[in-house]
Amino acid sequence: MASEREQAIFEAAIKLGALYHQFVGTPVSRTTASSLETAIQESISLQPYVLEVHVSIDRGQMEENLYGYSELKGTMLTVDVVTRVGDACCHARLRRKGDYPLMEIIRCYEEPQNTDH
Amino acid sequence: MASEREQAIFEAAIKLGALYHQFVGTPVSRTTASSLETAIQESISLQPYVLEVHVSIDRGQMEENLYGYSELKGTMLTVDVVTRVGDACCHARLRRKGDYPLMEIIRCYEEPQNTDH
Amino acid sequence: MASEREQAIFEAAIKLGALYHQFVGTPVSRTTASSLETAIQESISLQPYVLEVHVSIDRGQMEENLYGYSELKGTMLTVDVVTRVGDACCHARLRRKGDYPLMEIIRCYEEPQNTDH
Amino acid sequence: MASEREQAIFEAAIKLGALYHQFVGTPVSRTTASSLETAIQESISLQPYVLEVHVSIDRGQMEENLYGYSELKGTMLTVDVVTRVGDACCHARLRRKGDYPLMEIIRCYEEPQNTDH
Repeated sequence: MASEREQAIFEAAIKLGALYHQFVGTPVSRTTASSLETAIQESISLQPYVLEVHVSIDRGQMEENLYGYSELKGTMLTVDVVTRVGDACCHARLRRKGDYPLMEIIRCYEEPQNTDH
Repeated sequence: MASEREQAIFEAAIKLGALYHQFVGTPVSRTTASSLETAIQESISLQPYVLEVHVSIDRGQMEENLYGYSELKGTMLTVDVVTRVGDACCHARLRRKGDYPLMEIIRCYEEPQNTDH
Repeated sequence: MASEREQAIFEAAIKLGALYHQFVGTPVSRTTASSLETAIQESISLQPYVLEVHVSIDRGQMEENLYGYSELKGTMLTVDVVTRVGDACCHARLRRKGDYPLMEIIRCYEEPQNTDH
Repeated sequence: MASEREQAIFEAAIKLGALYHQFVGTPVSRTTASSLETAIQESISLQPYVLEVHVSIDRGQMEENLYGYSELKGTMLTVDVVTRVGDACCHARLRRKGDYPLMEIIRCYEEPQNTDH
């Protein structure tokens, strides 16, 4: 049986894999990057066990094509996601490493749920 | 050789096919539908020959799963896009017809470009 | 009202926009390119008004990442699609032009449907 | 620091999230399901740490639309993936549970790598 910590890891990774393949290829520019960040962030927030998520798109990598826009590439994305299963939290990240969009576990920790309410 | 009118039609259809397959499957809820509409709209606006675009997601079709959210289905989308190539404009639409997400040409028309500036 | 020829153009463009945004981002290598070509081709063939479709992925553009594979980029794709609405046919193409994955109308023509049966 | 077992879990989940959002929405029918299964399977096999993967699409859920085809839905997919990081393996699965496409850890185990070579 997987522990809560392992399940938190599992859930965090699902989110990174999912958003990557959902949104890569979307037309984007410096002007529209912000609305795309918001949409990605909000869509991930809906998914199970997500405690926090932050999405940032690197405008510096946007090379304009003939028509003045780019497409979202995996390496443009920096995403931090924190999941919680029971008391176990996992902070995972997608971030460019060289030419590769690396996904990795940053930290796992226990955080007792507030049960005052 | 394709006429400007035909090219406007061609370009409008590309946009509808593109956004459909880019965004279908995205987690969405009544709370987040609006940011997703904005992101889709802005991403299409970047593409060549787009004059206007309007995206609306039908909240009524959102059936919550176990975890309280839905996924964007093609039939949830109503999208109007107007493209212009030279003086020729094409207004095309994606809209649910029964269970099918129908894409169709609404109207083609000539609109001389404002060349005062 | 749109003519059959215009509708054939419209339908061809939908297919190009659709497949592009459905499949871009898929992990691919020289070894697997052929199964991906087949899957794309067969999935487009299902869509309305498609008479013929041919998909080819440029292995030459595959630069291996750290882990020995690539992701499908729009510029890797050469796709020819022929649609038919009534007697009107449209042959459209997606093909790299410089760094841009260009979609264009190649030719429209009339071809009376075989009504012997 | 994450253990090898935790990393195997992380990697398995990435693959499930990724393929889900890459391929959901693809036009599919009983005739083409098999080529789509192959393409999904081969594309996942390329990704890091994947030892085994098996993809199956439920033909029984395919309800034909007006034009005689369906679109791939998440609940149609049964995917088993086994990842290995060092000696640690993780077997994870995507499978319909009611109306939800559930992803879960099936089993983690140690399997010493063959180091004869």
